[in-house]
Amino acid sequence: MTKLYLISTGPGDADLIAPRSVKAIGECSDLVAYGLYLDLLGSVCDGKTHHDLPLGEEIGRARLALDLAASGKTTALISSGDIGIYAMATLVFELLDMQLQGKENHPEWLDVDIEVVPGISAMQAGSARIGAMLGHDFCTISLSDLLTPWQTIEKRLHSCGEGDFVVSFYNPRSKKRDWQINTARDILLQYRPANTPVLLGRQLTREDESITITTLDKLDAADVDMFTLVSVGNSETRHIENGDKEWVYTPRGYSKKL
Amino acid sequence: MTKLYLISTGPGDADLIAPRSVKAIGECSDLVAYGLYLDLLGSVCDGKTHHDLPLGEEIGRARLALDLAASGKTTALISSGDIGIYAMATLVFELLDMQLQGKENHPEWLDVDIEVVPGISAMQAGSARIGAMLGHDFCTISLSDLLTPWQTIEKRLHSCGEGDFVVSFYNPRSKKRDWQINTARDILLQYRPANTPVLLGRQLTREDESITITTLDKLDAADVDMFTLVSVGNSETRHIENGDKEWVYTPRGYSKKL
Repeated sequence: MTKLYLISTGPGDADLIAPRSVKAIGECSDLVAYGLYLDLLGSVCDGKTHHDLPLGEEIGRARLALDLAASGKTTALISSGDIGIYAMATLVFELLDMQLQGKENHPEWLDVDIEVVPGISAMQAGSARIGAMLGHDFCTISLSDLLTPWQTIEKRLHSCGEGDFVVSFYNPRSKKRDWQINTARDILLQYRPANTPVLLGRQLTREDESITITTLDKLDAADVDMFTLVSVGNSETRHIENGDKEWVYTPRGYSKKL
Repeated sequence: MTKLYLISTGPGDADLIAPRSVKAIGECSDLVAYGLYLDLLGSVCDGKTHHDLPLGEEIGRARLALDLAASGKTTALISSGDIGIYAMATLVFELLDMQLQGKENHPEWLDVDIEVVPGISAMQAGSARIGAMLGHDFCTISLSDLLTPWQTIEKRLHSCGEGDFVVSFYNPRSKKRDWQINTARDILLQYRPANTPVLLGRQLTREDESITITTLDKLDAADVDMFTLVSVGNSETRHIENGDKEWVYTPRGYSKKL
């Protein structure tokens, strides 16, 4: 039985990588990942064959991982954050599905044993760094319209507004996409107050981390890049200050019972 | 400076607890948690004072943790899953907020230094165990109407349906609440197909784990208890079978480009 691990390495801090991820990597001979991610992992990657592909080559990376595993090499496909959330895991299953439908010509992929190892996603790291922003019902929306029609994304933004969900935006901006985050802001402003707390978390839990707490009306694409998590509170999210410390949390409503 | 850690211990498997959580517990003299959670953690808890309170005493538990930390004891308040997601973290900040507003009489709480340590939530463990159910935009909804009016929950269920979000239900059922999950099913059936894949994940990643993959029309409260995570796919989520293995994933749409 050949084996493919789909492994999460969390938001950045090595202390937030689950032991299961490190152990699984230890069993592998071949790693498919950005070099950047491997630096976080340290010595467990020593002596293993490292396969990299240019940014944007997601399908190629998933194919390569399946091919390596099918050839008998115990292989890890590695993503930062949670590999199951806007990351590589779904691509591997999409390729398997194509094969099962006869739209690919790689029957050997079907013999690969797959294990997915979850991890801490950026929204969780961001929420924790400033308090408990995800304390009540929330959603995630990717603002990338490369694969999803903008019409679908816009519909979800309105649903998020109507449902008053806390929302975390993944892929808020790239070099080629700069207007989506401002449009998302304008849609949400139809549903919740201008002073709704917003988190801009850049390079969360890494050495060059920066955290900005602002308000929905001041959210602007100029302050966001592809390394930024943007989370917007719901209509009840509170931004509190205690001396020089500040916190953002979304209440579940216990204070009504206090 | 007195210190309070708000610590996540993940879905159950000790190998899915972040090292940061274990290290933070190691620094503490006092632990506030269900005994159940401490069993997962093992020897790091040895020799520490363990404070327990009956199930349902959430506010009491948050107060106790703040009191202990304010008295100079380095304290951990511990939740399974992610303490920031439908768990204890938001209560601590809600109490601090009450104090800042003068609605509590515990100024000593304001001197406590707080650090939140995120963790892997049940929805992530469930998604990973069966593939990549959270591969595209998703939301979470708590079905407990103890603190949130049912009217708000119902509005969110409709928004989830209109936005075609994958959804994970937390607190789907308790001994006293048995009808909410079936009502949620009926609302979602207005928006997505009867054969939409559904995960019932009970005691995820623990020794007595059980995983059931079913369809939305067959989702029934009789198969759900307070230890069950219920995740419902969106209209594009796929359930595929490869020999005796089965997977559920939500595509991002790469296959349109293959």
